[in-house]
Amino acid sequence: MATIGVLHPGAMGAAVAGALQQAGHDVSWVVTGRSDATRRRAADVGLHGVPDLATLVGRVDVLVSICPPHAAVEVASAVRSGGFQGCYLDANAIAPATVAEVAEVLGADPVSGTASAGITFVDGGIVGGPDLAAGRTELVLSGEAAGPTAELLAVDQPGIVVLDDRLGTASALKMAFAAWSKGRAALLLGVRAMASAFDVDEALVARWERRGIDAANEADQALATAGRKGWRFAGEMEEIAATFASRGVPDGFHRAAAEVFAAFARDEDARQLGFDGLQRRLAAHGEHAVGSPAIDEPPDRR
Amino acid sequence: MATIGVLHPGAMGAAVAGALQQAGHDVSWVVTGRSDATRRRAADVGLHGVPDLATLVGRVDVLVSICPPHAAVEVASAVRSGGFQGCYLDANAIAPATVAEVAEVLGADPVSGTASAGITFVDGGIVGGPDLAAGRTELVLSGEAAGPTAELLAVDQPGIVVLDDRLGTASALKMAFAAWSKGRAALLLGVRAMASAFDVDEALVARWERRGIDAANEADQALATAGRKGWRFAGEMEEIAATFASRGVPDGFHRAAAEVFAAFARDEDARQLGFDGLQRRLAAHGEHAVGSPAIDEPPDRR
Repeated sequence: MATIGVLHPGAMGAAVAGALQQAGHDVSWVVTGRSDATRRRAADVGLHGVPDLATLVGRVDVLVSICPPHAAVEVASAVRSGGFQGCYLDANAIAPATVAEVAEVLGADPVSGTASAGITFVDGGIVGGPDLAAGRTELVLSGEAAGPTAELLAVDQPGIVVLDDRLGTASALKMAFAAWSKGRAALLLGVRAMASAFDVDEALVARWERRGIDAANEADQALATAGRKGWRFAGEMEEIAATFASRGVPDGFHRAAAEVFAAFARDEDARQLGFDGLQRRLAAHGEHAVGSPAIDEPPDRR
Repeated sequence: MATIGVLHPGAMGAAVAGALQQAGHDVSWVVTGRSDATRRRAADVGLHGVPDLATLVGRVDVLVSICPPHAAVEVASAVRSGGFQGCYLDANAIAPATVAEVAEVLGADPVSGTASAGITFVDGGIVGGPDLAAGRTELVLSGEAAGPTAELLAVDQPGIVVLDDRLGTASALKMAFAAWSKGRAALLLGVRAMASAFDVDEALVARWERRGIDAANEADQALATAGRKGWRFAGEMEEIAATFASRGVPDGFHRAAAEVFAAFARDEDARQLGFDGLQRRLAAHGEHAVGSPAIDEPPDRR
């Protein structure tokens, strides 16, 4: 059994940490400065709370980073500064270029992840929902130490799989998977918002239905999901856009997807908002953003 | 029966013209300066050839414009200059704002399409493939004269339907329909191109299949279709992007889609190209385009 630290458990992080805990590992997290909701989630899955990062890095063999994409490099940097020696697994939804930044910050080889400053780096990507134990979700690993790390972690966890020995491929796979699942949801939300603005939404849905195109149901589901979780997808969409751009593939799909998701508020019931409400919100946002191509950061990404 | 002129029949135009001809109308087109392929298409459906636009506008009651989106305003302008008096139906894949430009050029009311200079303007959008007679395709009309125009044209043509009495809504419906059908195809091509570049395409497809997501087949079909027809979708994607932008909805999805489709050559067998070939082509194009956000016009949009 391994001693594992999880940085910093939100909904996804708590689920993965809980699965590792249930597998028999000793899983810890940093309590100080976290919200009541996060503390409840951590307590529910039986995690061991420690007061600060210094304590955490001193007591674990493996650190798993599961945090909002924009915080990934910063978290790695804090871990390095904290004097961690061991295996660092980044399971965040980040671009391969961001994986390379994390490697640099950790002092690990940018291709293999081999330690040159005491930290072995393994790239990870979570494909699917937060329920690792249910077998629908995979934690995909890559890098030279991916194999041993998977063996160490994978007690009764069929969802932990090794992709290959290069850093970045696990994250690229995660990006590609989310590029379609979340990208198509955002595109569909944009289509319905546009159709609503021109008062042809009903006519559009009628044509989809007549042709056996199931987009109307999918759009309703995308709206409900975006209402609950969209506010935290924007950063992931920016990472996907960066991944596309790094290989010359147009990044506009996911820059636009980031804007669409950023229009949602945290824990919103989007059935109230509707596609017409989404369009009005996007239009109002666009007026503020004139002259500024970058989207605003949502007020609270956590 | 009506006398109808069609400007300028490509694959879609010839199909619509043929359906009108078969319905018993007298359908003409301008022969001069058109390619052998276009002449063959026109002859196949029994169209009456005339030497020039001046002759055409003098002999018809209704003109139907079916041309590449970027030529729509120019065609309307030539018709006005040619002294046409009658009903002008724009069936092109253009943004509502472009419809308003066409109205202005024709000297018609920008909201209703009512003539103030002898030309009554009807907005049209073709939803579905080119086969109007098969019932899968609709020619949707809007504007004050949409009703009488549909009655005039709709002899045995169940696919000609009236949406409402405002210019722009027929085109908005067309834009929304194509925004999803062609937009999702372009997104999927981008996802596979990116995944190929990182050598995770096979791993991505395996995960889709395991989860019952039918994206792999859809991507193969999208690639084949883009090979045959993608070169002429770029202009339509730009019109969709303009439609989104005009209502504050992010336009990046379809700016990116335009770039993806512009990467294909005319009548290309894209199975040869593959997703990796597409990615290399997009990357090479991006290198040329550095510093220039606008995409290049394809060499031949017709």
